[in-house]
Amino acid sequence: MTTFDDFVTPYGLVSKVDAFGYLDYLKAHPSERKRPGQMVLVTADTPLKASRGEGKTTTTIALVDALCARGLDAVAVLRQPSMGITAAGSKGGASGGGKSSLAHPELADWGLCGEMAAIENAQNLLVSFAEKAVDEGQLDTILVPRVSEVPSRALRQIAVDRGKANIAERVVLTPTCELMQILVLSRSMEELSARVGAMTAGTLDGQPVRFGDFIDLWRITNLLGGAVQPAMMTTQAGSTVYMHAGPFGNVSLGIPSLVSVELALARHDIVVVEAGYGADAGAQKWLDIAAREFGAPWPAAAVVVTRATTWRDDPALRWRYPFHVNRLEGLGIPAFPLVNLWEGEDGERGELEETAATLGFRKPIMGNLFRDGGPALTPQLDDFLAALEAGQTGSGVSQDPGLAEQGHSQAESLHSHKGMDLLEQLKWVADSAYGVRAERVIAGPSFADSLAQAQDLCEKQGLSLNDLVPLAVKSPATMTDDDRAPESERSVTLKKVEPHTGAGLVQVNLTTSLTTPMPKIV
Amino acid sequence: MTTFDDFVTPYGLVSKVDAFGYLDYLKAHPSERKRPGQMVLVTADTPLKASRGEGKTTTTIALVDALCARGLDAVAVLRQPSMGITAAGSKGGASGGGKSSLAHPELADWGLCGEMAAIENAQNLLVSFAEKAVDEGQLDTILVPRVSEVPSRALRQIAVDRGKANIAERVVLTPTCELMQILVLSRSMEELSARVGAMTAGTLDGQPVRFGDFIDLWRITNLLGGAVQPAMMTTQAGSTVYMHAGPFGNVSLGIPSLVSVELALARHDIVVVEAGYGADAGAQKWLDIAAREFGAPWPAAAVVVTRATTWRDDPALRWRYPFHVNRLEGLGIPAFPLVNLWEGEDGERGELEETAATLGFRKPIMGNLFRDGGPALTPQLDDFLAALEAGQTGSGVSQDPGLAEQGHSQAESLHSHKGMDLLEQLKWVADSAYGVRAERVIAGPSFADSLAQAQDLCEKQGLSLNDLVPLAVKSPATMTDDDRAPESERSVTLKKVEPHTGAGLVQVNLTTSLTTPMPKIV
Repeated sequence: MTTFDDFVTPYGLVSKVDAFGYLDYLKAHPSERKRPGQMVLVTADTPLKASRGEGKTTTTIALVDALCARGLDAVAVLRQPSMGITAAGSKGGASGGGKSSLAHPELADWGLCGEMAAIENAQNLLVSFAEKAVDEGQLDTILVPRVSEVPSRALRQIAVDRGKANIAERVVLTPTCELMQILVLSRSMEELSARVGAMTAGTLDGQPVRFGDFIDLWRITNLLGGAVQPAMMTTQAGSTVYMHAGPFGNVSLGIPSLVSVELALARHDIVVVEAGYGADAGAQKWLDIAAREFGAPWPAAAVVVTRATTWRDDPALRWRYPFHVNRLEGLGIPAFPLVNLWEGEDGERGELEETAATLGFRKPIMGNLFRDGGPALTPQLDDFLAALEAGQTGSGVSQDPGLAEQGHSQAESLHSHKGMDLLEQLKWVADSAYGVRAERVIAGPSFADSLAQAQDLCEKQGLSLNDLVPLAVKSPATMTDDDRAPESERSVTLKKVEPHTGAGLVQVNLTTSLTTPMPKIV
Repeated sequence: MTTFDDFVTPYGLVSKVDAFGYLDYLKAHPSERKRPGQMVLVTADTPLKASRGEGKTTTTIALVDALCARGLDAVAVLRQPSMGITAAGSKGGASGGGKSSLAHPELADWGLCGEMAAIENAQNLLVSFAEKAVDEGQLDTILVPRVSEVPSRALRQIAVDRGKANIAERVVLTPTCELMQILVLSRSMEELSARVGAMTAGTLDGQPVRFGDFIDLWRITNLLGGAVQPAMMTTQAGSTVYMHAGPFGNVSLGIPSLVSVELALARHDIVVVEAGYGADAGAQKWLDIAAREFGAPWPAAAVVVTRATTWRDDPALRWRYPFHVNRLEGLGIPAFPLVNLWEGEDGERGELEETAATLGFRKPIMGNLFRDGGPALTPQLDDFLAALEAGQTGSGVSQDPGLAEQGHSQAESLHSHKGMDLLEQLKWVADSAYGVRAERVIAGPSFADSLAQAQDLCEKQGLSLNDLVPLAVKSPATMTDDDRAPESERSVTLKKVEPHTGAGLVQVNLTTSLTTPMPKIV
């Protein structure tokens, strides 16, 4: 008899799971599929600085350890950290901290099983094939960027074939590339291959040319190899963690692969999923892109991580945290504040609880998770579990898209925006996720040109730009052009449009984002 | 009790071996070290085209399968193929062919366990740190190149920070970088780390600056992670194969890591080691660099692979194959011609045997290894095994450097050239490995300048350039400026010198080599 173990291969200190194979197997053997688990989304306040997280990974690990300590069947699904900025010292890893850590944080932080490197090689190979197509007259303009996971400001703008053709190019960080987005969204090797084939390689005499028109797609899928398989590992306390696909919720998807979450939901009762940066980044992308447009599960509850200091220290930015909590509650997702206390902050519990009550929040969950780990949370989870229970019995929302009609807000949230004018979709995002009303969504000076070019590029491929799902590319530390401005003056400036026809996304640069984010090494 | 298995970790379809740990363990427990096995070097004729091998990997696999079929304890040690050119379709993989293949050629050809990608990331991270050092005034000129395994001609010459500083840079293929050379030559993580620290990052006001002066070396060793561990796998017939480190014997070392060979010799009686391209490339590098200067084992025998066509078709190049066989024999290494027959060539056996006899060779071993695999060789190995036996009993040369004094030619061959004038060393290589006498070794127009700069760079670090081991960088398809010229007119032009102070090598570009070999995708 086939079991899950048949889809698992030991891979050094972790295991790799053939998620495509296992999910296919369950589809073919529906009797072996148990009632799917409930998904909990871990998101956070918008961080004050891009380089300082609020502790989402630490919280996710502590929460799963606490749930397991209560005898529940809970697991975590994490994004893979970006080795580049960890290696360079620009940012800590994303493998938890202190007692709330992975058993092998060094593996997660330093390249895992080579997944990111395989994606980097595959995306760069696509560029090489595009170059060859230029030589052979099949292309005259290349539209896919080279990638590097190692950060280097000097790579943001480069010229290749120096001294001869001197072609201007840009290099972007690997986790933000279209191939990573395709890997996050694809549910089979066939889908992945078809999406690579549908990537726009460039143009010839202004006509778009897709990779499927001139390359052997098997070369790319071979190269990706094991990168499509989630890694399975444990926390220091022994809880199960799946880790798969890239970070950077501000400039890309910033969520784990859909198959890693679906695999976990097929096997466990509670699946705690981390999405990147603040609720305006990863959570917005999970809800509005993954769940609504790509059929990913809807959260049964959310945990919104913050630090006492983030919540308190900057009065001009204090509106952001309640905005995030209220947005999720407004979508029918029970949203639990979680305060990740640092050393010396234990005394602030009372004050934090009062603030939460004043703001109409659910009772906050608090703990020094670095110092105390999961046990700090174990006794505080009654309300959280009651909310999950309520979701399970149908009195709340459900994670199962098939049950989408049950809750009004969820049904509405899962109604696709495809076909809606792109500008209207962006105004909707600005309003619902950033609190900026339609009239204050402003087109920057070159936006109209960029939009027209993107529309043209899509139409010539028989696509409507409005059918691609908008993906905001923005700073992790701000939701609007100036988050410190009074509410009525906050705006969002639209800067640039870049269709990713393979991923089915259209990237739209907002506010102060770096379009080619290669951080300086610090 | 500790066993070898304690140093082995399953890693997907292969296993990874902690070779550093195992060899350390044997050093600390000499009683558990058995008499070391004998090393057989598989080399080849200089190929007619760079893109077409003679079948060394196929031969290595067939030979090991044949030896195992005779009940002998034989294994193979292979270099890792370059994924980039395989993926791009420029060259077949290096995982054997037909019945003489690895059990999982797709793994070997498409990135193995991410070793090459980790080396690529680590070398590129070094460049990023060098950039940071420029920003901080610790460097003004960067001397380490970025690398890419994916081939792209346009990357040979690039400009970074386009539109601002416009700094000219070059990108070289990952397998050829100094970090790969360090990985091939290092016998412990401490040695590796010290060698990275001794790499010349660049200069400040003309004074060389080493990486050890300004970076955390642990970041590089962390990033390399599992890349230091050889992979252990099997042939289709079930023989054991170790695979570790990079290809390209023409422009780099092109040999497996020293620890992978030493690990195999500590565990098996016959260890068949493949070195890259022709005998003028990989074999020259094994003998003159690895064995003579870095204490690697001396071959007990060699197999010199050729194809019937290479041997026959081009009269002007027909001198090369006997030259290689005779050089090895002259060094006291029994050198067996091996003809890798292709379809339709079975009828040529008689003629090939006659030619071999005329040339004074040992009886050639022949077979269609793609079609027939190891069994084609099994009955032909009596002479070969007798030669090994003779070596074992001391009547010939030995692979054990400790016994170097036994054979005159071996002792001479293992006498270090360190301290000898670099130009004299190069003349020695040209004479012994390419058949070009000293007076026909010519300095190209910019060689003297390049040599002076390299000497200066070394002296300012308290090193003598003459203490670095010369490593030829050349075309795989030629040994001299024109191999078709009559012997007395053949020359070698010296073009450029590039010290690799970390690896302890000095690269010298000869003949028609590409200094930054980024092949065109074909």
